[in-house]
Amino acid sequence: MLNVVVIGLGTISEMHVSAYEQNPNVHLYGVCDVNEERAERVADEYSVKHVFTDAGDVFNDANVQAVSICTWNKTHAQLAIQALEAGLNVLVEKPLAMSVEEAEQIQEAERTSKAMLQVGYVRRFSSNAQVLKQFIDRGDLGEVYYAKASYIRRVGNPGGWFADRELSGGGPLIDLGVHLIDLCWYMMDRPAVQSVAGHSYHRLGNRSNIKNLSFYKAADYESAKNSVEDLANGLVTFKNGASMQFDVSYSLHAKEDEVHIKLYGTKGGAELEPELIIVTESENTILNIQPQMDHPNFHFQSAFQNQIDGFVSAVLNEEVSPAPVEDGIELLKIIEKIYE
Amino acid sequence: MLNVVVIGLGTISEMHVSAYEQNPNVHLYGVCDVNEERAERVADEYSVKHVFTDAGDVFNDANVQAVSICTWNKTHAQLAIQALEAGLNVLVEKPLAMSVEEAEQIQEAERTSKAMLQVGYVRRFSSNAQVLKQFIDRGDLGEVYYAKASYIRRVGNPGGWFADRELSGGGPLIDLGVHLIDLCWYMMDRPAVQSVAGHSYHRLGNRSNIKNLSFYKAADYESAKNSVEDLANGLVTFKNGASMQFDVSYSLHAKEDEVHIKLYGTKGGAELEPELIIVTESENTILNIQPQMDHPNFHFQSAFQNQIDGFVSAVLNEEVSPAPVEDGIELLKIIEKIYE
Amino acid sequence: MLNVVVIGLGTISEMHVSAYEQNPNVHLYGVCDVNEERAERVADEYSVKHVFTDAGDVFNDANVQAVSICTWNKTHAQLAIQALEAGLNVLVEKPLAMSVEEAEQIQEAERTSKAMLQVGYVRRFSSNAQVLKQFIDRGDLGEVYYAKASYIRRVGNPGGWFADRELSGGGPLIDLGVHLIDLCWYMMDRPAVQSVAGHSYHRLGNRSNIKNLSFYKAADYESAKNSVEDLANGLVTFKNGASMQFDVSYSLHAKEDEVHIKLYGTKGGAELEPELIIVTESENTILNIQPQMDHPNFHFQSAFQNQIDGFVSAVLNEEVSPAPVEDGIELLKIIEKIYE
Amino acid sequence: MLNVVVIGLGTISEMHVSAYEQNPNVHLYGVCDVNEERAERVADEYSVKHVFTDAGDVFNDANVQAVSICTWNKTHAQLAIQALEAGLNVLVEKPLAMSVEEAEQIQEAERTSKAMLQVGYVRRFSSNAQVLKQFIDRGDLGEVYYAKASYIRRVGNPGGWFADRELSGGGPLIDLGVHLIDLCWYMMDRPAVQSVAGHSYHRLGNRSNIKNLSFYKAADYESAKNSVEDLANGLVTFKNGASMQFDVSYSLHAKEDEVHIKLYGTKGGAELEPELIIVTESENTILNIQPQMDHPNFHFQSAFQNQIDGFVSAVLNEEVSPAPVEDGIELLKIIEKIYE
Amino acid sequence: MLNVVVIGLGTISEMHVSAYEQNPNVHLYGVCDVNEERAERVADEYSVKHVFTDAGDVFNDANVQAVSICTWNKTHAQLAIQALEAGLNVLVEKPLAMSVEEAEQIQEAERTSKAMLQVGYVRRFSSNAQVLKQFIDRGDLGEVYYAKASYIRRVGNPGGWFADRELSGGGPLIDLGVHLIDLCWYMMDRPAVQSVAGHSYHRLGNRSNIKNLSFYKAADYESAKNSVEDLANGLVTFKNGASMQFDVSYSLHAKEDEVHIKLYGTKGGAELEPELIIVTESENTILNIQPQMDHPNFHFQSAFQNQIDGFVSAVLNEEVSPAPVEDGIELLKIIEKIYE
Amino acid sequence: MLNVVVIGLGTISEMHVSAYEQNPNVHLYGVCDVNEERAERVADEYSVKHVFTDAGDVFNDANVQAVSICTWNKTHAQLAIQALEAGLNVLVEKPLAMSVEEAEQIQEAERTSKAMLQVGYVRRFSSNAQVLKQFIDRGDLGEVYYAKASYIRRVGNPGGWFADRELSGGGPLIDLGVHLIDLCWYMMDRPAVQSVAGHSYHRLGNRSNIKNLSFYKAADYESAKNSVEDLANGLVTFKNGASMQFDVSYSLHAKEDEVHIKLYGTKGGAELEPELIIVTESENTILNIQPQMDHPNFHFQSAFQNQIDGFVSAVLNEEVSPAPVEDGIELLKIIEKIYE
Repeated sequence: MLNVVVIGLGTISEMHVSAYEQNPNVHLYGVCDVNEERAERVADEYSVKHVFTDAGDVFNDANVQAVSICTWNKTHAQLAIQALEAGLNVLVEKPLAMSVEEAEQIQEAERTSKAMLQVGYVRRFSSNAQVLKQFIDRGDLGEVYYAKASYIRRVGNPGGWFADRELSGGGPLIDLGVHLIDLCWYMMDRPAVQSVAGHSYHRLGNRSNIKNLSFYKAADYESAKNSVEDLANGLVTFKNGASMQFDVSYSLHAKEDEVHIKLYGTKGGAELEPELIIVTESENTILNIQPQMDHPNFHFQSAFQNQIDGFVSAVLNEEVSPAPVEDGIELLKIIEKIYE
Repeated sequence: MLNVVVIGLGTISEMHVSAYEQNPNVHLYGVCDVNEERAERVADEYSVKHVFTDAGDVFNDANVQAVSICTWNKTHAQLAIQALEAGLNVLVEKPLAMSVEEAEQIQEAERTSKAMLQVGYVRRFSSNAQVLKQFIDRGDLGEVYYAKASYIRRVGNPGGWFADRELSGGGPLIDLGVHLIDLCWYMMDRPAVQSVAGHSYHRLGNRSNIKNLSFYKAADYESAKNSVEDLANGLVTFKNGASMQFDVSYSLHAKEDEVHIKLYGTKGGAELEPELIIVTESENTILNIQPQMDHPNFHFQSAFQNQIDGFVSAVLNEEVSPAPVEDGIELLKIIEKIYE
Repeated sequence: MLNVVVIGLGTISEMHVSAYEQNPNVHLYGVCDVNEERAERVADEYSVKHVFTDAGDVFNDANVQAVSICTWNKTHAQLAIQALEAGLNVLVEKPLAMSVEEAEQIQEAERTSKAMLQVGYVRRFSSNAQVLKQFIDRGDLGEVYYAKASYIRRVGNPGGWFADRELSGGGPLIDLGVHLIDLCWYMMDRPAVQSVAGHSYHRLGNRSNIKNLSFYKAADYESAKNSVEDLANGLVTFKNGASMQFDVSYSLHAKEDEVHIKLYGTKGGAELEPELIIVTESENTILNIQPQMDHPNFHFQSAFQNQIDGFVSAVLNEEVSPAPVEDGIELLKIIEKIYE
Repeated sequence: MLNVVVIGLGTISEMHVSAYEQNPNVHLYGVCDVNEERAERVADEYSVKHVFTDAGDVFNDANVQAVSICTWNKTHAQLAIQALEAGLNVLVEKPLAMSVEEAEQIQEAERTSKAMLQVGYVRRFSSNAQVLKQFIDRGDLGEVYYAKASYIRRVGNPGGWFADRELSGGGPLIDLGVHLIDLCWYMMDRPAVQSVAGHSYHRLGNRSNIKNLSFYKAADYESAKNSVEDLANGLVTFKNGASMQFDVSYSLHAKEDEVHIKLYGTKGGAELEPELIIVTESENTILNIQPQMDHPNFHFQSAFQNQIDGFVSAVLNEEVSPAPVEDGIELLKIIEKIYE
Repeated sequence: MLNVVVIGLGTISEMHVSAYEQNPNVHLYGVCDVNEERAERVADEYSVKHVFTDAGDVFNDANVQAVSICTWNKTHAQLAIQALEAGLNVLVEKPLAMSVEEAEQIQEAERTSKAMLQVGYVRRFSSNAQVLKQFIDRGDLGEVYYAKASYIRRVGNPGGWFADRELSGGGPLIDLGVHLIDLCWYMMDRPAVQSVAGHSYHRLGNRSNIKNLSFYKAADYESAKNSVEDLANGLVTFKNGASMQFDVSYSLHAKEDEVHIKLYGTKGGAELEPELIIVTESENTILNIQPQMDHPNFHFQSAFQNQIDGFVSAVLNEEVSPAPVEDGIELLKIIEKIYE
Repeated sequence: MLNVVVIGLGTISEMHVSAYEQNPNVHLYGVCDVNEERAERVADEYSVKHVFTDAGDVFNDANVQAVSICTWNKTHAQLAIQALEAGLNVLVEKPLAMSVEEAEQIQEAERTSKAMLQVGYVRRFSSNAQVLKQFIDRGDLGEVYYAKASYIRRVGNPGGWFADRELSGGGPLIDLGVHLIDLCWYMMDRPAVQSVAGHSYHRLGNRSNIKNLSFYKAADYESAKNSVEDLANGLVTFKNGASMQFDVSYSLHAKEDEVHIKLYGTKGGAELEPELIIVTESENTILNIQPQMDHPNFHFQSAFQNQIDGFVSAVLNEEVSPAPVEDGIELLKIIEKIYE
């Protein structure tokens, strides 16, 4: 059994808590939030015994073996390093850190720790991504030399700490783009980056004036506060000659919200979103292949369960993390170049 | 009445010939092709009196006032310069030339000629583009700061001279991309280019092995001959901070063929393909606007008619061309950078 | 804070009670029903302190400042007059009364009262209606000279008091038609009525024999009891030359149930149901405009909230009611002519 | 064999000529138009021997037994009367005449003639109408007590003589409405009219400014000429208590063009357009019935053939016309009331 | 009031228990299961007083008047016979028994019992089946001479006792096929069987390896255990010349899961699944008729209620069962021939 | 070059003639029909030099090397035998003959002839069938153990000789069923037949009374003449344990016309009609595969071309026929058993 504490009890932490609950090898030892009332409420709901309001206390508790860090992006690095130094295994929500520099400090901490760290690239664990990875790994797409991805929201800046560059490190690029870029890069077999061209725009603000369309808002949403970009795009060139195009937005005068992820290889191609489809060629015929799945697109709940299960299994079996710290660093290098 | 000769009688020339026929201010004086039989056949079909097999003879005929140049890309520059020097007005099929250098020579020729030259950007003349341009010109989209466009064919290399880099100057980038880039750039109000990142790929060849899917093939199609790229992509950065992403292909492991063109501005956005739609905001409400048109997407025949009518009108009224030589040069600068 | 009592606790009262609950400026002081058990049950569910079984007691309670009247149509007038005389503000469910005569007595009571009365035209408060009204008010449709509307149920007579002409004043015309006519008339800027042609039919009865199709039934549904029309239609001519066509049914041999509301003006048109769409003309192009909304059609819950919020705000700020007693009278004049 | 001459060779006459050609009992004896060139061209195309430029000559030719009158509405009455007086059978395009007065003169002429006259209610002969009529005749709908119909064009004023009130007698009401009203009235078993309320509007003109949407234009279309209404509506009350609502337009700010015709009876209902569907009730179950037909909606060509065949058969067998002069008069009475 | 006990508390028993609860003429006297904990839990949930763990005790309780037998197929015969011998009315889940021999023993027991037995052919009681039966009974389809039906699951072997031939008597043929065959046979008016050709296949196993597609699994599902066929098909010939084709599967490489039931008669045809539609001919026109229903396909909950209501009514009114023991025997004769 | 004569110039012969025209290795030497006028007309249209009215003259002409036999089924055997005896290669329209006996005589004639015979199983040559066959041949479906197919026409008896059992040998079974059975059997790798159960029905006649639905009618259609079955069905059992179900109709009270062909194997499945789709399993995931084709269903014209090309190639290269006489015999064995 692995004793786990979840630190930072905002919206996303619910997914961690409930997935740990479902894992038979985990004992949800405690929950931690600076807001004690919130911590108590969660502890009540899930019948968790230990309530912490200071992460330091978590790290000092000898019974704890692993933590999920679900706090603002700004505190990821500091908490992850402390946890690793305390010998605790860490699942940290994406992005790994606010900068490459911070991320490398985490990497250093992990190198000298007996514990490991996993980055919260939950989309890698969605069943559509896992099925596609199997087909790519056995060579059905050949070498993937081009990818493109979009995550477009017309009015979807969550506000609160998401919209405060100081706390989040950025807007849609770091919140949504990190998923897209990671997924493509992961499917391309993690090629080394050669150069990055890209832009981030602050043209439309958060469009909080828009009425009659609902969207996710952070608990601390304030319409007047926003310091993050509303659009970012980029073209990443890899050392092996492959390239990747993407764009992500919180605010854009687009026709509709949209997510798509497309990959093109020498022997086949694929769309991961909005619905997994694999394209290959056989007997001189083009084949469009639809894997038959309950969820052919990203499914939050099952993907989270898979992610937590993967983390727990890697810790208990002392395996390599399925989303190691290196992958977090590489992504931040791309993102930093866009923000420059 | 404007006496016109069409030079080069391949597939695209049919559109020129029939559109000149429909224009009441034009007299289709002659047709010209090195293949005399072909020239005679066309002359017969359209009851055209003069048949030329040497473009030089066209330029020397004092009755001729304008020409359409529909030959291989390789000969565009030379013929255009000769025509301009002979005082003839020129409508040259896109791309204007094989290189920026050639294009600038054409520009020089036009500068010293009494005649003018128009580049064959036929998609500017499609009714969906014309309607959108009106709305952009009056400010409905504000400043357009981002555009993206795709023209994806899974198996669509036309072969023949299109597939011979020596004759065409390139593949899908120069054949299809030139339209996309021009349209976006034109809708963005022709901003100056600052930098271009991009790639062209030769990974899949022409996929001539594929069976049971039909596509346009040039008259001189040979499955074994192909020297052009099968995919190109790019991110263009403009001096005003705007940017543009695109990709174009003759061969790609994509799910389906696809054309889309999207533009995003500070006050609104638009999709030009696959169907014109304009997105704006009013009374704090997002509005998706569908102009009601017979052809909400690119319609070959009517666009060609509009293009020819525009050329003829500009010549007869001594107006500025709606697609002047400068625009051809600017596009080639972008394309050359991708090919580098 | 406004102390409110809801009188008459049938189905529709739930919408009033829950909307008052959501309004931060309201204290739900009490509930009232002749059926004490029902009143107690509602009071329990919403933790309301005062339970009344006699409306007179409500009017005599000095703490009460406003009431919602949700009783049978037959008692609307009497209760509204008593409330106004007691100085209470009134939100009365539509129709305002059973006859023009009654309605005018209410108007008289309001004129001499310090309080105000609002008619329950909830559809005016639906977000699709509110968005359209903004566009009409700024002139996008020009002058609206023609409207037509249908509210067709194949088998949808709710029975109970709805089907008893003595208690309800009529059938689909007074239950559904009052909404359609009011909405059109309101969007046309409340023109004076010149003449009304129309019919009400009793041909099919309530079709209670029909099996395997479910529909809303009043709590006191009895299949054998029905005295209201099953269909009504009408053509209303206004003094400004505009006209309006409508039809409404509880029973009809129609292909499907249907609601539509269409408005045509000198500069544009609109459909309010089944989905808001606005049609205008610009740059010699017809534009079909789809406002992007969570609910492009009538949405019961949010419309009710808006209605209650509007009533509360008008009372607290002593503003003109957004659905004043005059509007209730005008509608009854139209309806009475059809029933003649 | 019946010797027939078609008089007036505008667009609609093609349908008459080609349908007579297909009827084995007809000899197309001649064609007649004041424009001789046009008459010759038609005669050539169909190998017709006799060409007339004066209708009087047709009536004086002893070989002629029947005529189709396809001229401007203004001349219908005069030509029909002359033809009947000459003993010729007449198929006159709708509307029968410009006024009730004219129509009654025609009726008088027919009464004293040995020949008969049929009004060109071609939609009665469409297979969807014929199938529905069979089901109505055997009682499947019971008594039809309510009908409603729309024929809405957004931009569809054909211009030319259609748009000249002096020549056509009116706009969409007389051109399109006459079909709708006749069909409903015919399906309702031709009840006597009690009263008519209705309006005709001249608010939008012919919208000839609209670009990029095509529509039928008369040969003599001139954008600046238009004297007919752009919209008409009405509510017709019949003596048996039934009623009918309709609206028709050449110009309207509607979402889309639309044709629908709906009929409601005591035992069932039907939609004739946009697709025939019959609604009945059996075993306490509502049944929506789709007759399986090549053309479940109005099909121009086959309906015209059926009409011509019906006319020819009635003449040859001396039967009552399937669209007698009385029906033309009754319709004009309704239309005249709207135009008042 | 009828005192009822439900025996065997697996998944399907919930439908029995809740339907008995809804029937006003039933007192749910007790529940019975060998697993006492399960029995207690159900009793608690539905406030049932008597809990049995031995069916024998049920049969000996003089208060009990009827039982539902919801145990494994293997025990149906023995329990049904004991219940009948004890004078209890029986509703036994389908299939009636494991073999014709067993079924005939039940029949014998019923013959000598004062009580009656009904077979759980729940699909007969679905509203789509009941509506169709009415139309067939009054002759709308004439004589039904051909039926075909499919119930195809790609991956849908529920495992547990369903997959154990010793307990269930078979796989999809006995689980799903019994419904299809019974429905067709019932609609064909229960013709005598002349011969049966058919096959059962064990080719794919239970496909428990398949990931990412969910399906119903029995509580005691074990992926490694399976002894039933994965596919069965058959052609049944009846003595009146009619025939019936069917196929059913738990595992099959089919494109999608599918249920359809089609019936063809001399005067009309019908599809019962996936949606009731009736096809007839009238006035030389083919009519496709869609009964308007909340559930045009099989609806589990309402069908079960109808079945229980029918059973209770037959018992209380001493009527013939709507699904008598004979019908259970006839079906088993067909199924046995396929398994041979 | 192969000199070919087409014998019997009914509707289907057009496909033969035009496909021979397109084959570069064929010289269309002549056409033959007992109706000389028809033969002359075809010869004119295709510029064919030799016109025969007696098939015997064709067989005696030493220049002829191959014939297509497109006559009534009744004459297939006799003409094929004569042609083979004359040393001519034969492409005979399906069915090969009227009986197994006749077919075996043909086989005998071929055995002793230097020439070969091909049966007109044109659907084998459709591109969807050819693609599927490739995937089956390489093992993607494993062993195909079950097939089912339907070819349902509601009203589609072509009449004429098709409807005369003496000339055609039967109705939909021999006309349509022969294609279905052959395709399934061919895809199953031509297993030996063990037994056949099946029925043919004469219940509805040819439904010539049905109006308003068009269908293919033979040139000699007479509504009163019909002696063939309107429906046939069957279950074929093969010696390897596989089975096949089918039904075919000219007349049936079905909801719609329908063609489907489904095949199920141990490793995968497929639907050939209405659209080719292949279903397999890989990585424990079910894959639905859509080959990308211009015509994913049977395409008459291209399939005919492929068939003719295959016949010509087999003759010129002295290869085994892709549809040899044996295959024709095996099919007739199945069909004869159904008709018994």
